[in-house]
Amino acid sequence: MSSPKPLPFDPIEEARRQWTAHGWAQAADGMAAVTSVMRAQQIILARVDEVLRPFDLTFARYELLMLLLFSQAGSLPMSKVGNRLQVHPTSVTSAVDRLSSQGFVRRIPHPTDRRATLAEITPAGRDVATAATDRLNESVFANPDLSPDQITSLVEVLTEFRGRAGDF
Amino acid sequence: MSSPKPLPFDPIEEARRQWTAHGWAQAADGMAAVTSVMRAQQIILARVDEVLRPFDLTFARYELLMLLLFSQAGSLPMSKVGNRLQVHPTSVTSAVDRLSSQGFVRRIPHPTDRRATLAEITPAGRDVATAATDRLNESVFANPDLSPDQITSLVEVLTEFRGRAGDF
Repeated sequence: MSSPKPLPFDPIEEARRQWTAHGWAQAADGMAAVTSVMRAQQIILARVDEVLRPFDLTFARYELLMLLLFSQAGSLPMSKVGNRLQVHPTSVTSAVDRLSSQGFVRRIPHPTDRRATLAEITPAGRDVATAATDRLNESVFANPDLSPDQITSLVEVLTEFRGRAGDF
Repeated sequence: MSSPKPLPFDPIEEARRQWTAHGWAQAADGMAAVTSVMRAQQIILARVDEVLRPFDLTFARYELLMLLLFSQAGSLPMSKVGNRLQVHPTSVTSAVDRLSSQGFVRRIPHPTDRRATLAEITPAGRDVATAATDRLNESVFANPDLSPDQITSLVEVLTEFRGRAGDF
């Protein structure tokens, strides 16, 4: 959550000062980078969650719906969903369970592989994904509180980081 | 988690392409920035969690211990802990509950305010915080998989973002 009252100083800058004072100077910048990403994610997730709450969606379930919406057939094997979203198979299972109970996704047999199952987006799933995207675009994505230059710089640094981490 | 097999393309770049193809071009860059921060946080959190697991600590509880370790008296009012860590009071309560049961923190009465409670770090809490920091510095912070220039750029952009979000 946002702090109800802004702090009179930057807590991450203060942590960096403490790191240096404790003799950990060579790790201080990395600590600041890691902690900055953690905190930025909390701020962003709070904004995204607020938009998605009326749709009864989390960001994880929203991402899953969008992946299916963007797929040619409107369906993908469960294993491919996990691979594409870079999440654990058990997380895919529980997200699909929840989306199924909401009527946004259904499980169907794989046409050729009897051991595999597809997750397919339903018409109601398409409607909610599109409506949620309209609201997210309007409230968060079109104005993420970053200048165009900051967006470019952020995406560039994090793309390289994700690549080195083995995402793609 | 890291994808077991790297994807043959950048999934966020692919999402950006889809956004543009669906007529949402003016929100595509912001979507990429938001999603990049979300994914980078997952990668970083997985690394941090792996280091903290042997200490039976989460990053949230680790941050709380470090805040107390850095405080002059080794203790802070519960309300101040929430304010400094920018988390909800109920999260502070549950983290302190867990740290108390681990013997790393204890609750003591506030010396002058009868309605307030202090969280105080114990000697065992100091030991575990210092040992966990040594491991985090070595395994994550001193080498966060970002060049010095990338760290500077990332911290600069996210510091401004946090400031605008009302953190400080």
